[in-house]
Amino acid sequence: MLILGLDPGLGCTGWGVIAAEGNRLSHVANGQIRTDTSRPLPERLVTLAESLDHVLAEHRPAAAAVEEVFVNENPQSTLKLGQARGVVLLSAARAGIEVGEYAARLVKKAVVGTGGAAKEQMHAMVSILLPGVKIAGADAADALAVAITHAHHLASNRALKGHAA
Amino acid sequence: MLILGLDPGLGCTGWGVIAAEGNRLSHVANGQIRTDTSRPLPERLVTLAESLDHVLAEHRPAAAAVEEVFVNENPQSTLKLGQARGVVLLSAARAGIEVGEYAARLVKKAVVGTGGAAKEQMHAMVSILLPGVKIAGADAADALAVAITHAHHLASNRALKGHAA
Repeated sequence: MLILGLDPGLGCTGWGVIAAEGNRLSHVANGQIRTDTSRPLPERLVTLAESLDHVLAEHRPAAAAVEEVFVNENPQSTLKLGQARGVVLLSAARAGIEVGEYAARLVKKAVVGTGGAAKEQMHAMVSILLPGVKIAGADAADALAVAITHAHHLASNRALKGHAA
Repeated sequence: MLILGLDPGLGCTGWGVIAAEGNRLSHVANGQIRTDTSRPLPERLVTLAESLDHVLAEHRPAAAAVEEVFVNENPQSTLKLGQARGVVLLSAARAGIEVGEYAARLVKKAVVGTGGAAKEQMHAMVSILLPGVKIAGADAADALAVAITHAHHLASNRALKGHAA
């Protein structure tokens, strides 16, 4: 089962695809979609949507996940993030994929084992959990981390169901 | 020339199409796109995008316009608005339409004649400027107002160019 993790942003959106077979995870692909700050906003949103549609068409993930938004202190940043996030969620939904949402604390807990972990620790753990991965950048690392979180979540849901049956 | 005005919102997006021939304006259509608050966010964004794509396909406007965002005090509201706005701008851009942006003050000035006008005055003037219009609601009225603003802007640009020539 392929899982797509997403870290939306107007300037740079990270994405990462992992394969989950039971509890075994492996890396498939990751990358970062950048949009040109000198272009008008609608054009940047089209670039983001088209690049993400390309990723979705190439990898055909069965599920997707994003981090819950940390609402920025700066309302203009929140607005920009919201505009990018809307486009990202739309692309996934139009591809027929459900999108899980996880709090940043939960992502750190799933990847590192503690919700208070530093970003650097989390990125290091992503490399350990996905042997051989070459990470495109910090946003791609965040995207892979949320994909790993979603895989854990799905695995423990299955375990719970197994137990109840 | 058909101009589409838009007032994006996650719960309700207003839209209005007007026809501009020189300085003469007339109403074509207006409406409000509502999304179901009980459904997941990605699904709501799909409803918004599909409804707007339908409006774009039916009326084939040559230009579009939105109000610049008044950044809300509440960051969660700003994020919601951003997500809806991103989807709305994407739909217009994918239809090959440029989207003008106007400050709320400028819209009031274009419609009522003064930037400090109350919303109610502005809505009343929209009905006067577009004889026979039946307005679907407050968001549709705002959308028609920004379409009127864009029409004035285009007309004065033409006038300026004519003067310079």
